[in-house]
Amino acid sequence: MARKSRGKQRARSAFPSQQPWQRLVNPYSPIEVLDEEELNAIHEASMEILENVGVEFLSERALTILENSGAIIDRDNNLVRMDRGLVLESISNAPSQFTLHARNPQRYVLIGDNHICFDSVGGPAYVSDLDQGRRAGNFNDFRKFICLIQSLDVLHMCGGIPVVPVDLDPATRHLDCIYTTITHIDKVWHTTGLGRQRMSDAIDMLCIVRNQTRDEIKTEPGIFTTINCNSPRRFDGPMLDGLMEAVEHGQAVTITPFTLSGAMSPTTLAGSLVQQNVEALAGIAFAQIVSPGSPCIYGAFTSNVDMKSGAPAFGTPEYTQACLASGQIARYYGMPYRSSNTNTSNVADAQAVYESSMSLWGSIMGHSNLLHHAAGWLEGGLTASFEKTIIDAEMLQMMGAFLKPFKVTNDTLSVETISQVEPGGHFFGTKQTLDLYEEAFYSPLLSDWRNFETWSDSGAQTATERANILWKNILDNYEQPHIDPATDEHLRVFVDRRKKEERQH
Amino acid sequence: MARKSRGKQRARSAFPSQQPWQRLVNPYSPIEVLDEEELNAIHEASMEILENVGVEFLSERALTILENSGAIIDRDNNLVRMDRGLVLESISNAPSQFTLHARNPQRYVLIGDNHICFDSVGGPAYVSDLDQGRRAGNFNDFRKFICLIQSLDVLHMCGGIPVVPVDLDPATRHLDCIYTTITHIDKVWHTTGLGRQRMSDAIDMLCIVRNQTRDEIKTEPGIFTTINCNSPRRFDGPMLDGLMEAVEHGQAVTITPFTLSGAMSPTTLAGSLVQQNVEALAGIAFAQIVSPGSPCIYGAFTSNVDMKSGAPAFGTPEYTQACLASGQIARYYGMPYRSSNTNTSNVADAQAVYESSMSLWGSIMGHSNLLHHAAGWLEGGLTASFEKTIIDAEMLQMMGAFLKPFKVTNDTLSVETISQVEPGGHFFGTKQTLDLYEEAFYSPLLSDWRNFETWSDSGAQTATERANILWKNILDNYEQPHIDPATDEHLRVFVDRRKKEERQH
Repeated sequence: MARKSRGKQRARSAFPSQQPWQRLVNPYSPIEVLDEEELNAIHEASMEILENVGVEFLSERALTILENSGAIIDRDNNLVRMDRGLVLESISNAPSQFTLHARNPQRYVLIGDNHICFDSVGGPAYVSDLDQGRRAGNFNDFRKFICLIQSLDVLHMCGGIPVVPVDLDPATRHLDCIYTTITHIDKVWHTTGLGRQRMSDAIDMLCIVRNQTRDEIKTEPGIFTTINCNSPRRFDGPMLDGLMEAVEHGQAVTITPFTLSGAMSPTTLAGSLVQQNVEALAGIAFAQIVSPGSPCIYGAFTSNVDMKSGAPAFGTPEYTQACLASGQIARYYGMPYRSSNTNTSNVADAQAVYESSMSLWGSIMGHSNLLHHAAGWLEGGLTASFEKTIIDAEMLQMMGAFLKPFKVTNDTLSVETISQVEPGGHFFGTKQTLDLYEEAFYSPLLSDWRNFETWSDSGAQTATERANILWKNILDNYEQPHIDPATDEHLRVFVDRRKKEERQH
Repeated sequence: MARKSRGKQRARSAFPSQQPWQRLVNPYSPIEVLDEEELNAIHEASMEILENVGVEFLSERALTILENSGAIIDRDNNLVRMDRGLVLESISNAPSQFTLHARNPQRYVLIGDNHICFDSVGGPAYVSDLDQGRRAGNFNDFRKFICLIQSLDVLHMCGGIPVVPVDLDPATRHLDCIYTTITHIDKVWHTTGLGRQRMSDAIDMLCIVRNQTRDEIKTEPGIFTTINCNSPRRFDGPMLDGLMEAVEHGQAVTITPFTLSGAMSPTTLAGSLVQQNVEALAGIAFAQIVSPGSPCIYGAFTSNVDMKSGAPAFGTPEYTQACLASGQIARYYGMPYRSSNTNTSNVADAQAVYESSMSLWGSIMGHSNLLHHAAGWLEGGLTASFEKTIIDAEMLQMMGAFLKPFKVTNDTLSVETISQVEPGGHFFGTKQTLDLYEEAFYSPLLSDWRNFETWSDSGAQTATERANILWKNILDNYEQPHIDPATDEHLRVFVDRRKKEERQH
C-alpha cells in the first residue's frame, strides 16, 4: 500500500486506463413517477403525521432544543410533534446547494441542483473477493479498499469505512480508520455519525489535515455523515449526538430513514415514502434548528422486503420507483438528495449487476446529488466486494459518459462526410474518423470487446474474473497523495493521545 | 419438447413463477437528449442528403416504382434522390400505431404510441449454454429456444430465428423454422425479410395457421420482418424484394439501418443519426409508395465501434444516447420505433448485464415500441444464449414492474397504519401488510434474495448458474399451445410441397 518506487512500478502491470476525475452534471430532465397532485398528497400526509403523531427523539438535549423552538414534546414517550410552520420554516434555512472541500483543492464537490457525486460503499462488516471468498473484514482489507477508492477516479468521495476492521479495538477503531483514510485519500470523506466523541475526533482530524481551525472548517465543510432514522419514527441518542456535533461545526449530514416497505414502513410504496418524508423532514428540521443554514441532504433508502421471507430486497423495481419519487420529494422542499447503489446478491454476478443497474438508473434519473455506496456494495450492504467495486466503477463511468451532453453542430451532423462515402462503403479512412478516433467514444475500464476467438484464446475470463485482476493491478500502482510530514506527525500524535484517553475510560 | 403427459409433469420440477403475459404501456415521459433545435437540425441534414446525395436501391423494380412516384433516379449508379415533399408525404401514410394479430387472439400486440413489446433474439449463428459452451446452432437448439420463447410470458412475440439451424438445408431451412415456430408458439412472430419467396412462404403459412385468405390477413397483419439497410446508403435487392412482398400483403416491416458509428456511419453520434434517418426514411417512404398505409416501424440500431480495433461495441453510453435520440426522431415523424437489447460480451456475465441494462434503459425511456432481441442476445448478436435468455427475462420483468404506474390514494398513503405502529416497531403484523402481502411487491424469476448462509448452504450458485437450471426446468414444463390437427396437416403438406419445389430448382 505504500508509495511505490519508480523501479517497482515498472515491474508491475500498468494502471488500467480510466476516465479522468471530473464533476458531473445531469443534463436531462428527471424521470417523474408522481404528478403534482400526488406530490402534494404525500406532503399533506407527512404534515399530518408530523403535527399529530410525532417522531421519537431519544436525547434529552434534543428534546429541550426542540421544545425551545416551539415543538410539542410528550416527555412520557419522547414524542416530538411539530406543526408545519415550524417544519417548513426550519428546513427553509437549509441550503439547496453547497460545496464540500477536500484536502486536495481540485477535488471539491458540489452537492445540490443537477450535480451528482459518487462515493464508495460504507459500513459492511464482511469483505469478499474471488480469491478468499466472503469473510469478516480486517484492517488490511480496509487499507486495500482505501487505496482503491483513492485510485478510482470515478469516485468523487470516500463513502466511509468501506469494510469494518473487526481486528481493531472498537473503542478506537474510528481513529485508525480516519487516520488511514485522510492520509491515503485526498478526496472528501464520510465519517461515522454514531456519537458525539467520534464526530468530534473526525472534526479535529479534519482541522489538522487541512491546517485550519474549527471556525475555519465551519464555513468550508469537508466531511459528511449519515444520520439514520431507526424507522419507524425513532432517532436514537448516539445518532442525535453525532448529528448535533456535526452541524454545530458546519459539517454535512444526510438524514436517511431506513424505510423498508413491509417491515419498517407500510406495505405500500406511497406509505413508505410518507414515512420516509416524515422522518427525513423531522431530522432536517432538527438539524436546522440546532444550526440554521448548515448543509443537509435529504436521504432516501426506501426499498421493500421479500414478502415470502421478510428478507430485505434492493435494486427492485419498487426501489427504482422510490428513488425517482424521492428525488421529486426532495426537490419539492428544495433539498439536495441522496440515494444509493444497492443490490441483494450474495456474489458479484449477473443479479448484482441488474439490481445495481435498477438502483443506478433510478438514482441518476431521479437527480440524486449524492449516490452513496456507489461502488462495492453487495449482499444488501453486509459485504464490500473488491470485484464489485471494479464492476461498479465501470458502470459509473458509463453513466458519466451518458451524462455528457449530446453534441449537434454543423460539424457533428457530418453531411459532407456522409456524402463522400459511397453506398456500401465505410468510414474508417475519412478525415473525420482520423481526426476524432482517439476521443470519439467511451473507452471502457473492464469491458472486453474482443471477438470470441481472441477472448477465448486469452483465457475466456468473465468480467468478474477480469475485475479480480484489475483491482490488484490498481493496488500495485497505488500512489499515496502527498501529505506534509508535519501534518502526518500531528495526526499521529492526536491519534495516540486519543487512544490513550479511550483506554483510560 | 413434446407435450408432457400429466404423469411426466409431476415427476419434473415445477415451472418457476413468472409475471403473467401482459401488454405494457410506458407511463413516464421519455428522456430527451435532443432539444427542438437539434431535432430540426437532424431533420434538415437528413433532407439535404435525401434530396441531393441519395440512397442506392439495388432492385430494378424498386427503381421503377420510385421513378414513377417522382423520385429522381440515376440509373448509372442506382442512386435515388427524393425531395422532402415526396419523402414526408409518403411517410405520412404510415400508421402511427397498429395491431399485430397472433393465432392466439389474446396475444395481439399494439405497436406505437406508448406501448412497448418485447421479442426474443433473432438471427445468431451460434448458440451457447453453460453445459456445452459456444458452438454452431442446430435444429435441436432452435426448437429448444422456440419452446422457451413460448413459455416465457414476458416475451410478447417471437423475434425470428433465435439461432440458425446450420444442420438444415439453407434452401428450405426457413420452411422448417416457420413450421416449428408457428406450431409451437401462439404469439406474433418475426420472419426473415431476405427475398420475395421466403416472405411469400411465410405469408402462405400465416394464412394456413390463421385459416384466412391473403386478403384477410392483409387487414389483420400477423408477422413482422426486419429490412436492414446495408449502410451506408444501400438497400440490397433481396431485402427490397422481401420488403415489397411483405408490405403488398399488409405485413409489418421494420426499416433498420446498421449505422455503426466510426465504421458504417460517421464517427460522431449526430452524424450517425443523420445517416440512420436518411436510410430509415428512404426505406419507409419506399414501403409507403409501394403500399400506402402499410404498417412500418422506424428501426434504430446506431452503436459505435471500438476505435482501437474497429470491432463493434453495443450497450455503450453512446448506444444509450442513440436509443433516446432515435425515439425522439421517430416521434418527430409520427412513426412507431424499434430498438434492441444489445451487448458485446462473449459470455452471460456482469458485462453482458451492464451493457444490456444500458440498452434497456435507453430503449424503454426512449419509448421504444418494439424492443427487438430483448432476450438471449450475446456477443454482438453472433450468439444466442440460453442463460442470457433467462437473465433478460428477469430484467424485462423488472422493467415491466417499473412501468406500472405508482399508486397514490388515501389507502396507499397509509397515514393510519403509520400512526398505529409505535416508534422502533415493525409493520409485519399490521392489517395492511396482512391484506397486501401476497401481491405487494415484484416477485422475481431468477434473483436469489436468501441470506448468504442459506444461499451458500444450498450450493452458492451465481445467477448465471441458476439461469442454467431454470431454462431446463422451463423446457421440461413446456406445453404446446393447441393447434387444430387439420391445420397442422395443412402446414405439413405445404412445407413438403415447397421443399420439393426448392429441390427441383
